Amino acid sequence: MATQSEKADLFLKLHLDDELLVLPNPWDVGSARIFEEAGFPALATTSAGVAATMGYPDNQRVTKDEMLDAISRIASGVQVPVTADIEGGYSATPEGTAASVQEFMQTGIVGVNLEDRDAENDGVLFEIPLQCDCIRAVREMADGEAIHLVINARTDVFLENIGDQETQFERAIERAHAFMEAGADCIFIPGAFDAETVAALVKETAAPINILIGPTALDLSTLQDLGVARVSSGSGPARAAMGFTRKLAEQMRNEKSYQLMVDEAIPYPEVNALFD
Amino acid sequence: MATQSEKADLFLKLHLDDELLVLPNPWDVGSARIFEEAGFPALATTSAGVAATMGYPDNQRVTKDEMLDAISRIASGVQVPVTADIEGGYSATPEGTAASVQEFMQTGIVGVNLEDRDAENDGVLFEIPLQCDCIRAVREMADGEAIHLVINARTDVFLENIGDQETQFERAIERAHAFMEAGADCIFIPGAFDAETVAALVKETAAPINILIGPTALDLSTLQDLGVARVSSGSGPARAAMGFTRKLAEQMRNEKSYQLMVDEAIPYPEVNALFD
Repeated sequence: MATQSEKADLFLKLHLDDELLVLPNPWDVGSARIFEEAGFPALATTSAGVAATMGYPDNQRVTKDEMLDAISRIASGVQVPVTADIEGGYSATPEGTAASVQEFMQTGIVGVNLEDRDAENDGVLFEIPLQCDCIRAVREMADGEAIHLVINARTDVFLENIGDQETQFERAIERAHAFMEAGADCIFIPGAFDAETVAALVKETAAPINILIGPTALDLSTLQDLGVARVSSGSGPARAAMGFTRKLAEQMRNEKSYQLMVDEAIPYPEVNALFD
Repeated sequence: MATQSEKADLFLKLHLDDELLVLPNPWDVGSARIFEEAGFPALATTSAGVAATMGYPDNQRVTKDEMLDAISRIASGVQVPVTADIEGGYSATPEGTAASVQEFMQTGIVGVNLEDRDAENDGVLFEIPLQCDCIRAVREMADGEAIHLVINARTDVFLENIGDQETQFERAIERAHAFMEAGADCIFIPGAFDAETVAALVKETAAPINILIGPTALDLSTLQDLGVARVSSGSGPARAAMGFTRKLAEQMRNEKSYQLMVDEAIPYPEVNALFD
């Protein structure tokens, strides 16, 4: 069994080789084991999906302890490297963020997303120097643990459509350069969807780029051809499983049939075997 | 908002009226909210489904504290009555079982399954007098809380195919009579599937009967016509959601497509609205 440091190195390598790294996003141990069994070499948790299992809306309603518990179960429930969506890092300071990430590292995870949006302050973006200090503090802390934590620095310029649209692209690039300089390994730009923008981001950042897949995103082979390093699915799979559950529920309630349940169920012994 | 006692009375009434009570089995708050939104008047938790979210196989691997946490979140995440699958009651004695059930009642649940199989002793059935003492102890405890807890007394004679097949039916009836006499409200007989057996169980027990649906079970309208009071789905919906997730995972991994994710996902704002 690989050590945490070996898993982190393996995970970083998956960003740097030619093949697009596709990260599905589990929300509990069951979904994590299913993704692992399907052959994915690494997994990324989804904060929105975890929140839904607990009955919270997304956006920092799950407490740090609840998120630690959920991520700890996932990270110890699979063999492959796991990177964590820890929302805002449960702090708005570099020291606080590094301390939070250190707690999450103790669950066995080998990567984190660090978001540049201040959810507690009307969703405005953190100033670049502050966010860079956060990234540096997390890198320094992880170096102290002798683990190359894979830092996926996220900018919400596009996702939240923040500021003047004319300057969105150049502001994203400015952030990407600064975050890489501060020690990030990959730049996560959710909300960037069209081929022209994605190609330009890959070119201008000269960094591994993480794109979010979804209804308006490009297909995986196009993203690979454009030079994207990593894609993740966010809460998409969790919301799809919920959509399936709703279909099953409505069939059972309105049509008085449980055919969908019978047709799709993994047999009981097979589910148990997933966790042995 | 109904009190716990009012919810318990409502839940009992759903067993006694003419319409078949169909209980879907959520495994987390997200699935519970989906079943509630679909219009089900009550919900029943699934121990196997809860176990899968945590990475355990079924059968008493989830600790009592973990199950309390999971059931507490579900019970407080919905308005409708919730009955709990608490496996073996975390005790093999009447006093211990009553104490466990009391802890679970503090989460807001209004019903429990009490199983007659001793998972710690090679799965043999508890002797009838011991199981009746358990039921009486739970009833007495709940009376002390001034709540008519709905006790669903389960016998595993059929499910586990225990003992001489020739006498299975009469042993199930003997248990049903004894359990009702001891204070149960409903008799859960998983593993009874064919129409002749179900009809005979309804007739000979003269009690509300709970049948488990699944691949070899009768359809809901037939079960209603046969006089069944309640059906539950066990881990079926949880295993079906896992089956769906596996399809999505395999499509993403093997076909490099995320169409199923896009097609089935409940939109992000709609998921958040489920929990507001």
